[in-house]
Amino acid sequence: MRLYSMKFCPYAQRTRLVLAAKRIRNEVVNINLVTKPDWFFYRNPLGKVPCLEFDGKVIFESLITADYLDEVYPSPYLLNSTDPFRKAQDRILIEMFNMVHSNLYKLYRAKLDVEDSWKGPIGGIQKGLTIFEEELTKREIKFFGGENPGMVDYMIWPWMERLPTLPILSHEKFKVEMENFPNLAKWISDMKEDSAVKESHISPENHARFITGFLSGNPDGLLC
Amino acid sequence: MRLYSMKFCPYAQRTRLVLAAKRIRNEVVNINLVTKPDWFFYRNPLGKVPCLEFDGKVIFESLITADYLDEVYPSPYLLNSTDPFRKAQDRILIEMFNMVHSNLYKLYRAKLDVEDSWKGPIGGIQKGLTIFEEELTKREIKFFGGENPGMVDYMIWPWMERLPTLPILSHEKFKVEMENFPNLAKWISDMKEDSAVKESHISPENHARFITGFLSGNPDGLLC
Repeated sequence: MRLYSMKFCPYAQRTRLVLAAKRIRNEVVNINLVTKPDWFFYRNPLGKVPCLEFDGKVIFESLITADYLDEVYPSPYLLNSTDPFRKAQDRILIEMFNMVHSNLYKLYRAKLDVEDSWKGPIGGIQKGLTIFEEELTKREIKFFGGENPGMVDYMIWPWMERLPTLPILSHEKFKVEMENFPNLAKWISDMKEDSAVKESHISPENHARFITGFLSGNPDGLLC
Repeated sequence: MRLYSMKFCPYAQRTRLVLAAKRIRNEVVNINLVTKPDWFFYRNPLGKVPCLEFDGKVIFESLITADYLDEVYPSPYLLNSTDPFRKAQDRILIEMFNMVHSNLYKLYRAKLDVEDSWKGPIGGIQKGLTIFEEELTKREIKFFGGENPGMVDYMIWPWMERLPTLPILSHEKFKVEMENFPNLAKWISDMKEDSAVKESHISPENHARFITGFLSGNPDGLLC
């Protein structure tokens, strides 16, 4: 099992989290996404990571790789496999998280020192987080997946790990006030104790350095 | 089983195709997507169709509703359920179809009488169709799903049905030359014979009327 990845890519991190949670032996090949090697397009015509290679076969797209691994390596199951309705609900939640990460990218591209350019995306992130705060309250359990992290937990984590980059990149002008999301705040500290999460964890300072470099067109030395 | 739908919505058509293929009894409630009723947001906070309601439960997002129905009503299975790799491949194909439908929407919004504004999207559509033409050639079978239409066939069909709107909307300035895609051309005529496809079929002329109305902000009378 080989994973084509990139250290700072949140989508590739999704697959890495699933591989780690299931303790699937794998080797990681980091791809320079700025100057992609030609041979990589033979694996994935879209040239994107994550991309999984095994037995001469290739699959890509973060959610598809995660579902595949969950089906073929069911110990432990990350998506509740016995209840199709619960499975659908979890998939809907993962889709709804787009509200958080699409607005996070808008913020990265906005001028964070100009208040007008971040009001909209900030509202979107807070609206998105509210859905997850309420869902966690409703489920009355430690993780979205139950006593242990499940598919929802791992699929949203990469961007939750990146939320603390906002005060760094905006020079403390903006941060998500986690006291407004007490259950999510507790969830974040619980997730940080998970061994799969620890394996791919990168500090907010290093994420912020990468994002600054990437946006300025100069992520070299940070890519792999 | 109740489906909140809209007659001209390609995403809702995906769910309708699955319901029809599996002969699942259902009632359709068409939603006016321009002036959405308040009560609909209690079903789907995103206010989008398709949205399925059953036993006091609600699910939405076209691919999630399709997967749910496929799991709960497995006769016939639309996504190969015994081979996780084939299932992943089919899901990747469905994702890659984005290249066709995202560019179709770009064309709808472009000025179709100005050549420069359609060259890029047209190239994207042709590149996307080439992937499906080659895959069909490789699979050497009538439909992507085998002897009968499967998940890939139904999930891409709504936009394949809308491709012939292009010469109508561009006053014959542009059309996808299907002779460049002989297997797909055969597939289209086979799909048109499928009873599920027939149930939700709308003519290119009526699709074009709806799209013209929708883009001009006046789709009334065509919405439901």
